[in-house]
Amino acid sequence: MDGHRISMLGTGLIGDFYTNTLHGERSRDRVRVVYSRSPERGEAFKERWDIPESTTDLDAAIEHPETDVVIVALPNFLHEEAIAKVAKAGKAVLCTKPLGRTAAEARRMLQAVEDAGIFAGYLEDLVYTPKTLKAAAAVEAGAIGDVTWVRSRETHPGPHSAWFWDGRLTGGGPIIDLGCHCIEIIRTFAGKGNRPVEVMCHTDTLVHPIADEDNAIALIRFESGAMGQFEVSWTFRGGMDLRDEVAGTHGTIWLNHFLRTGFEMFSAAGAGGGYVAEKAETAAGWLFPVGDEVSELGYVDMFTDQFAALEGGTAPRETFYDGYVVNAVMDACYRSAKSRQWEPVDVEWRGGVTPRISNEPERYEGQVVIKREILPDGRHKLILKDEASGDFSDRVVAGG
Amino acid sequence: MDGHRISMLGTGLIGDFYTNTLHGERSRDRVRVVYSRSPERGEAFKERWDIPESTTDLDAAIEHPETDVVIVALPNFLHEEAIAKVAKAGKAVLCTKPLGRTAAEARRMLQAVEDAGIFAGYLEDLVYTPKTLKAAAAVEAGAIGDVTWVRSRETHPGPHSAWFWDGRLTGGGPIIDLGCHCIEIIRTFAGKGNRPVEVMCHTDTLVHPIADEDNAIALIRFESGAMGQFEVSWTFRGGMDLRDEVAGTHGTIWLNHFLRTGFEMFSAAGAGGGYVAEKAETAAGWLFPVGDEVSELGYVDMFTDQFAALEGGTAPRETFYDGYVVNAVMDACYRSAKSRQWEPVDVEWRGGVTPRISNEPERYEGQVVIKREILPDGRHKLILKDEASGDFSDRVVAGG
Amino acid sequence: MDGHRISMLGTGLIGDFYTNTLHGERSRDRVRVVYSRSPERGEAFKERWDIPESTTDLDAAIEHPETDVVIVALPNFLHEEAIAKVAKAGKAVLCTKPLGRTAAEARRMLQAVEDAGIFAGYLEDLVYTPKTLKAAAAVEAGAIGDVTWVRSRETHPGPHSAWFWDGRLTGGGPIIDLGCHCIEIIRTFAGKGNRPVEVMCHTDTLVHPIADEDNAIALIRFESGAMGQFEVSWTFRGGMDLRDEVAGTHGTIWLNHFLRTGFEMFSAAGAGGGYVAEKAETAAGWLFPVGDEVSELGYVDMFTDQFAALEGGTAPRETFYDGYVVNAVMDACYRSAKSRQWEPVDVEWRGGVTPRISNEPERYEGQVVIKREILPDGRHKLILKDEASGDFSDRVVAGG
Amino acid sequence: MDGHRISMLGTGLIGDFYTNTLHGERSRDRVRVVYSRSPERGEAFKERWDIPESTTDLDAAIEHPETDVVIVALPNFLHEEAIAKVAKAGKAVLCTKPLGRTAAEARRMLQAVEDAGIFAGYLEDLVYTPKTLKAAAAVEAGAIGDVTWVRSRETHPGPHSAWFWDGRLTGGGPIIDLGCHCIEIIRTFAGKGNRPVEVMCHTDTLVHPIADEDNAIALIRFESGAMGQFEVSWTFRGGMDLRDEVAGTHGTIWLNHFLRTGFEMFSAAGAGGGYVAEKAETAAGWLFPVGDEVSELGYVDMFTDQFAALEGGTAPRETFYDGYVVNAVMDACYRSAKSRQWEPVDVEWRGGVTPRISNEPERYEGQVVIKREILPDGRHKLILKDEASGDFSDRVVAGG
Repeated sequence: MDGHRISMLGTGLIGDFYTNTLHGERSRDRVRVVYSRSPERGEAFKERWDIPESTTDLDAAIEHPETDVVIVALPNFLHEEAIAKVAKAGKAVLCTKPLGRTAAEARRMLQAVEDAGIFAGYLEDLVYTPKTLKAAAAVEAGAIGDVTWVRSRETHPGPHSAWFWDGRLTGGGPIIDLGCHCIEIIRTFAGKGNRPVEVMCHTDTLVHPIADEDNAIALIRFESGAMGQFEVSWTFRGGMDLRDEVAGTHGTIWLNHFLRTGFEMFSAAGAGGGYVAEKAETAAGWLFPVGDEVSELGYVDMFTDQFAALEGGTAPRETFYDGYVVNAVMDACYRSAKSRQWEPVDVEWRGGVTPRISNEPERYEGQVVIKREILPDGRHKLILKDEASGDFSDRVVAGG
Repeated sequence: MDGHRISMLGTGLIGDFYTNTLHGERSRDRVRVVYSRSPERGEAFKERWDIPESTTDLDAAIEHPETDVVIVALPNFLHEEAIAKVAKAGKAVLCTKPLGRTAAEARRMLQAVEDAGIFAGYLEDLVYTPKTLKAAAAVEAGAIGDVTWVRSRETHPGPHSAWFWDGRLTGGGPIIDLGCHCIEIIRTFAGKGNRPVEVMCHTDTLVHPIADEDNAIALIRFESGAMGQFEVSWTFRGGMDLRDEVAGTHGTIWLNHFLRTGFEMFSAAGAGGGYVAEKAETAAGWLFPVGDEVSELGYVDMFTDQFAALEGGTAPRETFYDGYVVNAVMDACYRSAKSRQWEPVDVEWRGGVTPRISNEPERYEGQVVIKREILPDGRHKLILKDEASGDFSDRVVAGG
Repeated sequence: MDGHRISMLGTGLIGDFYTNTLHGERSRDRVRVVYSRSPERGEAFKERWDIPESTTDLDAAIEHPETDVVIVALPNFLHEEAIAKVAKAGKAVLCTKPLGRTAAEARRMLQAVEDAGIFAGYLEDLVYTPKTLKAAAAVEAGAIGDVTWVRSRETHPGPHSAWFWDGRLTGGGPIIDLGCHCIEIIRTFAGKGNRPVEVMCHTDTLVHPIADEDNAIALIRFESGAMGQFEVSWTFRGGMDLRDEVAGTHGTIWLNHFLRTGFEMFSAAGAGGGYVAEKAETAAGWLFPVGDEVSELGYVDMFTDQFAALEGGTAPRETFYDGYVVNAVMDACYRSAKSRQWEPVDVEWRGGVTPRISNEPERYEGQVVIKREILPDGRHKLILKDEASGDFSDRVVAGG
Repeated sequence: MDGHRISMLGTGLIGDFYTNTLHGERSRDRVRVVYSRSPERGEAFKERWDIPESTTDLDAAIEHPETDVVIVALPNFLHEEAIAKVAKAGKAVLCTKPLGRTAAEARRMLQAVEDAGIFAGYLEDLVYTPKTLKAAAAVEAGAIGDVTWVRSRETHPGPHSAWFWDGRLTGGGPIIDLGCHCIEIIRTFAGKGNRPVEVMCHTDTLVHPIADEDNAIALIRFESGAMGQFEVSWTFRGGMDLRDEVAGTHGTIWLNHFLRTGFEMFSAAGAGGGYVAEKAETAAGWLFPVGDEVSELGYVDMFTDQFAALEGGTAPRETFYDGYVVNAVMDACYRSAKSRQWEPVDVEWRGGVTPRISNEPERYEGQVVIKREILPDGRHKLILKDEASGDFSDRVVAGG
């Protein structure tokens, strides 16, 4: 019944979200030591979350004798070094997203943890939102048939920390910051074993005076024929727009994670109030708060799954290999944005083979039924195709 | 860092929800023994939730040497006896809702725990939904001004267990089953210290061939002038409709807990699928699942608050006294439904005094501003009242 | 193919809405002359809507030789006089809502038009919204079974014209201003032939320093057992909230006419913009405009029905008798608010008799089926009642 | 005040929608003669809509001595011939969408009407929905700043008439059927004068056994840098999904035209009911009807604009030139789907030049403000960029 004692590396917003979750509700896990490059930020973090110790010594944090898990919540450019040190220390490691700045970097991290034989989880929170988990289970149960299309959208007015805007440190703009979420959400619905074959991406820098993109749209073609589509932006106005849509041969799923979740508030200017939700733009007028952000954003279920896997000796839902695949897709996005061509996803594929989307058509009196529609009077209208001639006709038949 | 070991009394749906929550995520609390009147149900429950022991001996369950908390998840008519035994055993007790079948019964339970000096929490989950907690905090921070009106609606097609339908065992129909939630939600927004003064209630048995009401509407007038309004029904079609609306002098809040929460799914008939959500009526067509039911329905935050209070030596958000007030309001509802009159809420009030809703009107050139409206051209239109003559006039002025 | 030539009495906001509609789209009807008590307002209205003539002579407007229809769009206290004059002139008359300030006044107007034998239509626009018409047709077709409950809510921050606030001129506060809509919407769904038997109403003046109510809640019991419920307010914050909900033994209908209709806009402060929608409170932040207000508020379909009835020699959907019934219900509301009792609706009833809501229960092996529920595994759970003993039990059976 | 007398060519669903609209409400316009290739369909249409005459003689219909306007509501492959005949007859012509099967065909039709000097309107209804018109006006007024991205989505389970499925007759699949709407909606928001420069399109045939695409996704890059994006499909499940999203530098617009418009109905299976809305898949469960389809789909405002332009001697909102531009974009889509490259839009451009999206950044103490964010405590957090070094930093300042 004992929980985990954790070395937390990093004190940014993501470190706050993680620690809030780890210490939250009735949890048996605790952060034991926090590492920061800045002693002030480390001390503040320690106070804020009631942590026994803070340090500016990365090795000391990782090798702390009382911790069994290390969480890497550092800026992207520091992941590889930290992972290497944890691998050497032989502890379980959980790394924030994206895994690397490039697939090559991610591939080396994957190699490091596999060589060391340590447990390595990828902290892709948005795949773990309660809605996503339930929707993914419904898709796996066949509730919408074969998946044909997945749209994942993550846009907001731009990140909260200065370093996020510096592509030299992060690897890019919103593709790196937000697209990594979208790609893994798309994979979750299209199927983790469904190979992402090629990518077409368009990027532009429309609003912010930065060197990297602030807007991107990408298409991902999967082996089954399913299409992924993501839109990421640092120029959206109105809050944080996190929506996913999944189309299948027999159904549809729409998820809204943040702006329309059944919580609506109008507050007249000057009436009071304050913090509404992450990335909210205003504190008056119509507002759309989120009930429990750490739960709705997937942090709670993410750590539950990762720790259960660690304790059970199984693989977590999100592994370093997944992080590497995501980096490979992002690499293809950046290549495509530059070449303006469909670019192959260059990845060492471990996921097997997925057959083409299947849909055996219904037949009626020897012809193919293209479509069946309910008429106002309850009868059904069939659109029929004669396969020999290629001609189409319609027929109204009794309903039911 | 040690958690609690719990004696769970009862193996119905609510026991499942509680145990699912208690054992959920990274919890440090566990059910140690479960009591059921039926050995079969007790054993099944024990297996289902991986509990060390089941028993049909109520005293043995309550006095189990390894447990420190007893949870009463029994049908309403068994609460009083169980509470008395826990009081005698001197353990902390958490009791499901409603506390009693009547205020008199609840008052005796309150007395018992106060006489015994034990910790006693009231398991009113819907006051603890993440949305409700955040909305209540916004109201307390002044985001919508003074609360003028609260509507709480809880309707579905009827309960899942046979005993719920027998008013002899429960104390009544949906007022007892669902109204207890609504009343406490209304109190949460109107203010726990705002005395519920009187009640007007209409009930009818429209659809189900039962002796108790299957529909009820009630109005509750609070000391401040704020009005509560609840609608409860066992005849609603379309799933479980849980909505709250709060109006204030400076704002509005709308909460939808179940049917429209940003998760929408269409599943063609026969496509697969299955369980959608509690009280869902169909498994095909447009469906509205809920991400994480135990979280969205408040169970997670409820136990967190109750255990934090127990450990911290403070009062939980929901106490036996609150349960008693709820019973007193429900008693007034039943009296009013019968007398067809406004009936006073007969309660030993501990909540203090709440002043009348205040709204000091704006003035403009010596007159009272009744209203200020934005015109299409940006100017403002004022409705003015001359207090001497009682006459009204309007004036268009520059905006801003 | 010729249209109507209209005498428009009144130049307020409602006159604008009517004339906008009458002249709108490809209409063949035109306002020929407008009457105003103020020559300035009359001239401005004439210019605004391209009308040939304006006058301050009420008789001249009504008796204008080229008009065949008179529309009464005057403040409430001027209706009776105007109707009497139109009756004398023998022209068709359409009167805005509410018909009278009291049922007695409305009864006299009804008498006047019946004695004169003229066509008389009641301009209750909200019963004619496209959504309401389609929903009413669905209810009549049996799509939701017998109606058990109707909620109609109309609230906003208060009227735009000064005279509306003066109960001496209008007859009251939001019950008169908004409740008249709600009552007729409720009757439309509960059934026009379903007698409103009695009323319970609560009113209060919470925010605005006026002599009449600024908030009211009312319950209306119909002969069938169906309950109507309306909430009206001049203190709502956030725009104009027009929603209706209908519950039936086999279904549910939810209508949102104004604030959530599939049009959502975020506009950063200072970005431009301006007029959003009637009663909108802000011009920045999240806004909820309405596509075509005159259509969405029912004005278009209202005049189509009224003129079709006039031309076809039939009764329109909304008659002076309906207006009289609405006034009778409002009278009962005001009586009840004062007496704090259920008050009978005192009306000369012409609508016939409506039987009690019927619901013949399903039977299973000799017992009454109280409820049938789908389980996660697809089987059905029945709640059964033994009529002899009054005992309840449950049984799980195969689904489908 | 006289209306138009119309020759209606075609008796399919679109002819029904047009005639329903033309004869609707208080209209002064009437269809005088209907042409059909089939005498039975012609007679049935004549009876259905109370039209004086039907004919199978195309020339007779077009040259009918009492009509002044000809509406082409024929399958796509018959447009060119019909337009040529109307041009010869010298009457005003309104042509359904898409104008041609290819840009070349559309260009010839444009030439024909320009040579003949006749009024020629393009019946692109979805640009005329009340929501779209109001949203477009808001965009033009600057409410969301410069448009950066427009998404238009139109998907449903497939067309209702057999000929729609035969690409030999239509010119293609859903790009031709639905994409033509999306493209013009995108142009409406991006700006009619904003040149569509190039297109990237992906198509696939996933579900229906047809020769053309049943799914397509396309990106359109405009001269200003704004991106258009459309998704069209004949395999969507759940009804007809018509949504548009517009992002601007200072705001956001979301439109839902069909499935979520504030009208929600649950109808238990077997409760009654029937026709719900165009392309609805079920008649039980949760349903989402549309209030007034001909209004919500833009038909009413479309004919009002077209006839007002005809009468006023001005250009309508949608001209044959617009139809030609749409065909040019669709041609580029099909080329791109085949070449898998960005393809230029090959069009004779008449729309002028549009500058790049502008966004002059705010400055703070000599640095560029990348972003300004509200903190929970009301202060503002600025992300600053030093232009010399390219370094980013953040600064917390007083709010307001």
